[in-house]
Amino acid sequence: MAYSFRHLIEHKRDGGVLRSGEIRWIIAEYTNEHLPDYQMAAMLMAIFKEGLDGHELEVWTDAMLHSGQVMDLSHIDAPKVDKHSTGGVGDKVSIPLAPMVAACGAAVPMMSGRGLGHTGGTVDKLESIPGFRTQLTPDEFASIVEKTGLVLAGQSESLAPADGAIYSLRDATGSVPSIPLIASSIMSKKLAVGLGALVLDVKVGRGAFMKTLDRARLLAETIVGIGKTHGTPVVAVLTDMNQPLGRMVGNANEIAESVEVLRGGGARDLVEVVYRLGEEMLMLAGVESERADARTRLEKAVASGAAFEKLEQVTIAQGGDPAVLHDPSLLPMAENEHVVIARESGYVVRVDAFDIGTAALRLGAGRERKEDAIDPAVGIAIEVKVGDEVTAGQPLARLRWNDEGRLANALPITESAFEVSEHLGTPLVYGEVR
Amino acid sequence: MAYSFRHLIEHKRDGGVLRSGEIRWIIAEYTNEHLPDYQMAAMLMAIFKEGLDGHELEVWTDAMLHSGQVMDLSHIDAPKVDKHSTGGVGDKVSIPLAPMVAACGAAVPMMSGRGLGHTGGTVDKLESIPGFRTQLTPDEFASIVEKTGLVLAGQSESLAPADGAIYSLRDATGSVPSIPLIASSIMSKKLAVGLGALVLDVKVGRGAFMKTLDRARLLAETIVGIGKTHGTPVVAVLTDMNQPLGRMVGNANEIAESVEVLRGGGARDLVEVVYRLGEEMLMLAGVESERADARTRLEKAVASGAAFEKLEQVTIAQGGDPAVLHDPSLLPMAENEHVVIARESGYVVRVDAFDIGTAALRLGAGRERKEDAIDPAVGIAIEVKVGDEVTAGQPLARLRWNDEGRLANALPITESAFEVSEHLGTPLVYGEVR
Repeated sequence: MAYSFRHLIEHKRDGGVLRSGEIRWIIAEYTNEHLPDYQMAAMLMAIFKEGLDGHELEVWTDAMLHSGQVMDLSHIDAPKVDKHSTGGVGDKVSIPLAPMVAACGAAVPMMSGRGLGHTGGTVDKLESIPGFRTQLTPDEFASIVEKTGLVLAGQSESLAPADGAIYSLRDATGSVPSIPLIASSIMSKKLAVGLGALVLDVKVGRGAFMKTLDRARLLAETIVGIGKTHGTPVVAVLTDMNQPLGRMVGNANEIAESVEVLRGGGARDLVEVVYRLGEEMLMLAGVESERADARTRLEKAVASGAAFEKLEQVTIAQGGDPAVLHDPSLLPMAENEHVVIARESGYVVRVDAFDIGTAALRLGAGRERKEDAIDPAVGIAIEVKVGDEVTAGQPLARLRWNDEGRLANALPITESAFEVSEHLGTPLVYGEVR
Repeated sequence: MAYSFRHLIEHKRDGGVLRSGEIRWIIAEYTNEHLPDYQMAAMLMAIFKEGLDGHELEVWTDAMLHSGQVMDLSHIDAPKVDKHSTGGVGDKVSIPLAPMVAACGAAVPMMSGRGLGHTGGTVDKLESIPGFRTQLTPDEFASIVEKTGLVLAGQSESLAPADGAIYSLRDATGSVPSIPLIASSIMSKKLAVGLGALVLDVKVGRGAFMKTLDRARLLAETIVGIGKTHGTPVVAVLTDMNQPLGRMVGNANEIAESVEVLRGGGARDLVEVVYRLGEEMLMLAGVESERADARTRLEKAVASGAAFEKLEQVTIAQGGDPAVLHDPSLLPMAENEHVVIARESGYVVRVDAFDIGTAALRLGAGRERKEDAIDPAVGIAIEVKVGDEVTAGQPLARLRWNDEGRLANALPITESAFEVSEHLGTPLVYGEVR
């Protein structure tokens, strides 16, 4: 069946509902490059404005999911559970979390993204471990998760290729922040991996793509809804991203901080989010049915060293050098340090995650353009959290830098990220949607 | 100055206002093919949804107008006035009107379009006069209007090229029926000709692009507003396009009907619209200040044969054979005729202009695809008007056809265009906007 794409655009533009056959035709023909980008761009803007209803969204997601290969991990006996974050600053959660959950008996077949704009990417961070390969074939992916209970890979181009093509177009044409398009993008890739269950970490605030709790909740509900229609249980947890998570923002420095968590240390906020998501994963996977039991199991996996060993195993399986995990001082680290100090005494009322993420990007920890290389050795250590009391002259942040021009470019926005005055933080966990 | 087109799309998408420099940059860079179609398609959809305010529209129009050559007709002493129609079925108004107005002492430098969808085009109709050339160079255009007080040409590609490029993209991506985009498209082309004044015929109804009086009035007000900011007086007249105008729908047959009007005959509705627009043109050009005087002058130009002679002069100047004007039976005319008759007696309550336009298109009088050739010899003669009393068996329409398959395709929609029952027509002229 062939349709007039122009008529379908007009129909959606005027608030109409697309039928299943029409949606499947659009996704298939666009993936095969039979439909021009300019028409798809107009359709995406129409969807941005008019939305997709529940049934349209289900079909749109399913069509993207089936636009390429669908993995079959059914030969793995362990319950399979993954975690996905909508992206933030200092969000290295996956790196300690996945080994912890795997050490507790669930299988974690994780595909992560690269940094996007001011946010960091798990894949970029992992690649600061010398030799660590994130581009795996589907066979390598399946065999590593089968062997170690865990795999930490980048997106495979053979999975949900429609999503990659549509995402690039949205990025260029102003239709990125659309709830149904974000939700279908996330879920098409996750469902193509053949997951059993998914925990979603929806970041909310200045440093997140969802700036308000309302929009974050809507995204969470939308994704939980897609999971339901596909028979994949999803729990979404809404967490704060007004200030960076943990202490480190960059790449190699976030690996070091992740190891700290696996060694039983780490910043309080980071640890809280890691354990909360770990509890959800273990409960969703059916490893534990009570939250307290899940917590205890996670704590034991850390205390026994089993979680750290999982990270070591997966690092070796993916070609990385495990020596840097045992001695994080071997990780790349820029020699030059610039310290930003408090100009006045008082309480820290703002550490702006967007500004800090942008500063790290400018230092070279992220990409201005897609083709840019990142510098794993640069980054920012945040020395204070919202609510902390500081005295004038005390360090607020330490910037590790390799290029003087980049430092000069990053410094003003780092300084303006901090606000010191009189008191009070915001909650870390806002709620959850099941 | 360079801008991020993506940011401008996002700004418009969210209801923002574009600045002058931003708009001029978009139009200039798109015309120079420095901006990709997919981004422009998204911007046009955003404009479709969010509109352009008065100042944005003024700048958008001005930027399109200056995207190519701007004609200078200032050496012509006579007041220059043009008429533009938003397009309809049986709308051959320009062909008798322009010579009538020229015969009254105004100069009419007219650029017209080709048929679009179910509507006919003045240029296609003129080309059914053997030899008549509508593609003129700007020099030919200027010299013919200088010599004969009149020129009837097609769109020049060197005038407002941005409009041509944007129109094609809108057509493929569902942003055609946007009031600001329609208004700026019309006015950029008209202003590039260097007009003194413009009378706009906004068609309203089933066979028009504006289906409701509200939208037609909004378009009229928008165009009058653009004229005002550019110092070009515009009067818009809203006229009915629920039923076809006049008796003939096609190409050569509409030339014959136009000659009838110049000979003092013609269908009442067609004559009423021609004279009403002619009065507006003469008043706007300053040839007459009173409507009654303008009417008398037009009637005299017809009665004296001066108007017919103007059409003859311009035909010769543009390479056409004037013999067909003296004897319209020499015009191409398909030999086969099929008569649609009334099945019951009563009043005609509907002669659907959209259906009749579509039927004529299917017979070959218009183009299904841009590259199609039209057949000037086919068309439809409408034998009844809304409000007429008919008896069963009386002819409603006569189809002239050349291809049996096309006739079979055109017939059902021709038949369903007519509704006979118990009565009353709709007004022909709905009002005006100054």
